Amino acid sequence: MRKNLIVVGAALALAAPLSVLAQAKPEQLVKQRQSAMTLIGKYWGPIAGMASGKVPYNADVVARNATYLENLAQMPWDGFNESTKDVKSNALPAVWAEPTKFQEAADRLQAEAVKLATAARAKDEAGVKAQFGAVGKACGGCHESFRVKQ
Amino acid sequence: MRKNLIVVGAALALAAPLSVLAQAKPEQLVKQRQSAMTLIGKYWGPIAGMASGKVPYNADVVARNATYLENLAQMPWDGFNESTKDVKSNALPAVWAEPTKFQEAADRLQAEAVKLATAARAKDEAGVKAQFGAVGKACGGCHESFRVKQ
Repeated sequence: MRKNLIVVGAALALAAPLSVLAQAKPEQLVKQRQSAMTLIGKYWGPIAGMASGKVPYNADVVARNATYLENLAQMPWDGFNESTKDVKSNALPAVWAEPTKFQEAADRLQAEAVKLATAARAKDEAGVKAQFGAVGKACGGCHESFRVKQ
Repeated sequence: MRKNLIVVGAALALAAPLSVLAQAKPEQLVKQRQSAMTLIGKYWGPIAGMASGKVPYNADVVARNATYLENLAQMPWDGFNESTKDVKSNALPAVWAEPTKFQEAADRLQAEAVKLATAARAKDEAGVKAQFGAVGKACGGCHESFRVKQ
């Protein structure tokens, strides 16, 4: 029965990632969304280092990491279900008070990540370096409004 | 400096995911690999429910989830660096005592996940249902040998 409900949630999430009725337990949803953020950090770090010129550019690593990020950028959002409001996390109440703005921020990251991955897979180093800032701004802008200050 | 070292780790990981010298802290590596496993569980659950006929089949959800899994199946392995041996986790000592066998198990999951995703994106329901068992066996076989009993 539990699997059944989770599947329905996933199906709805395709169309409406933030409004879906989550059926997984709130704590599990938080763990899943935090896992996505952890992995986004893992694969973003090297790209940031390379795109900003701090370390030698490796087009293969950038292509791989950006492809992972393109996928990972889609994963956190259904974890911010309203059922998780009271679970301790770094999410600010604004996530649920301003759902349209939050959805826009989520959409923006996904769109910018697609552009980054497209340039990265084309081994377009200049394109990656140009797009790097847009992805960074999408991360930072959302964190600024919706995450507890680190 | 820290970023620099992490980048080198990622670059090497392309060629040798298990032998790479990890530069991230052991606790961070464990957190990252556990995050990948958490997300594999998130996206595997609905596929398992649908492929085994417990819930109605949704080809779009299966295609999306299997694509995520194809990516996620590549992510845990560099987190099993030898530096993490003494960090509390569910990994058994066999991970480091039998590295060749562990690498083979990791490779197997990745190969089976590619096949599943290929069938899923082709909207080949019969192919997905045929491949579902192979992925499940790859998960279970590795857990049997390398993970603390749950």
